[in-house]
Amino acid sequence: MGRISGTTRLLAVLGDPIEQVRAPALVNPLLDRLGRDAVLVPVHVRPADLGEVVGGLRRIGNLDGLLVTVPHKIEICRYADELAPAAAFTGSSNALRREPDGRWRADNFDGVGFVRGLRARGHEPEGRRISLVGAGGAGTALAAALLENGAARLSVCDTDARRLHALLARLGERWPGRATGSAVPRVEDADIAVNATPLGMRADDPLPFDPSRVPPGGVVADIVMKPAETRLLRTAAALGRAVHHGIHTLDHQLECYAAYFGLAG
Amino acid sequence: MGRISGTTRLLAVLGDPIEQVRAPALVNPLLDRLGRDAVLVPVHVRPADLGEVVGGLRRIGNLDGLLVTVPHKIEICRYADELAPAAAFTGSSNALRREPDGRWRADNFDGVGFVRGLRARGHEPEGRRISLVGAGGAGTALAAALLENGAARLSVCDTDARRLHALLARLGERWPGRATGSAVPRVEDADIAVNATPLGMRADDPLPFDPSRVPPGGVVADIVMKPAETRLLRTAAALGRAVHHGIHTLDHQLECYAAYFGLAG
Repeated sequence: MGRISGTTRLLAVLGDPIEQVRAPALVNPLLDRLGRDAVLVPVHVRPADLGEVVGGLRRIGNLDGLLVTVPHKIEICRYADELAPAAAFTGSSNALRREPDGRWRADNFDGVGFVRGLRARGHEPEGRRISLVGAGGAGTALAAALLENGAARLSVCDTDARRLHALLARLGERWPGRATGSAVPRVEDADIAVNATPLGMRADDPLPFDPSRVPPGGVVADIVMKPAETRLLRTAAALGRAVHHGIHTLDHQLECYAAYFGLAG
Repeated sequence: MGRISGTTRLLAVLGDPIEQVRAPALVNPLLDRLGRDAVLVPVHVRPADLGEVVGGLRRIGNLDGLLVTVPHKIEICRYADELAPAAAFTGSSNALRREPDGRWRADNFDGVGFVRGLRARGHEPEGRRISLVGAGGAGTALAAALLENGAARLSVCDTDARRLHALLARLGERWPGRATGSAVPRVEDADIAVNATPLGMRADDPLPFDPSRVPPGGVVADIVMKPAETRLLRTAAALGRAVHHGIHTLDHQLECYAAYFGLAG
């Protein structure tokens, strides 16, 4: 940290709580390796203070961008001047930057981070049948990114029928005829079956779906990062299915952030 | 900077421009040596944005304090909940912190930094006759700190009669009978003669006072930091007077800041 000086540019990550946020410990070594005169600092913002804090941060001349995490990803969109397509579709954002004209633009890299992670591990989604369990914030981001990147057919499952059908209606508008829905998981003909619910974070959570019903040769993917090995992935691996861990999404989101903020090597 | 994480506490230094500000490069190595999980970041704020930026920064849960430099030291006082005596007397502040009750308190360490620097170099102001040239912001801070720390008699000089007499009136209220004023420097009987004007920053500036008129055995002090050796100090040294450099004030201000923010070793 000795190298921070008056010329150092700032990035901030906003969350509540903030102590557990991993972005500073991951991004700052990257900035060091790239020799960038920039630093990412953690910023603890309570929900009631979000507007005032963002209003102040936006006016800091040497602050170039924001990362946004729980619980601010939806609310932050109110404070952007424009929304990139992924932020507009999901109604949530995890990265904002100041554009050359001074406007603040919000984007969302949850979905594209997941897709890039899949590809990097050899699991191309284009032309495949994909089953997605969970139509919440993460599921919405993944659904849009998977269809945008050429998934042939997407089956979305959620126990909340209203949430499910709202998502299906919006997917159908943009990518007609490729997404279907159900209240129970349909993974029997999936090339890739994805858990986009929080199930698996706790040891006694039920499985989000039964990995034995995924066809042999199919991939079982999880967005849960803690624990790294969810019961879903352990069970799927024991059954001989290929597995895809939550951490790959984070790794590739970091690449997206670096590119978005002009920090890529 | 690899050690910044979600638990890191924040301090910020506000200025316009910000690139030349030395506090981050000076304070962050100190934080590292002390093993503190805290970082001081530069924050570029234009005058028109000061209220909004400070309003946002104050609400950041892990931001504990602000350093303030040109041109915000006067205006910042409007955004504090309370003023320490040095900030109230000078009407300017270079350090604000969040108190345990959540209120933001503004203080000013220009004067005390100067006095501590003098003492550290063996020039005790208590009981001495001191001549101060310049009744602006720096002169006001030094005058109050010198009287507070026991100067027997203070002679203040400024070419701006209104500014001079306004300062003398306020000094007289708080420390009756110890401060006098003049339009031209009176250094003939000074134990310590201090330049508190910007004269000396440029090579062709006139001398703020004639150091040959300071009694042999007297001290000639300068608040100008750049250049380190002003013409005043070079001339005084050539005449055999003891000299006291501007940098000592900064060094001891840093100690004051560290103590104020609870960072002292």
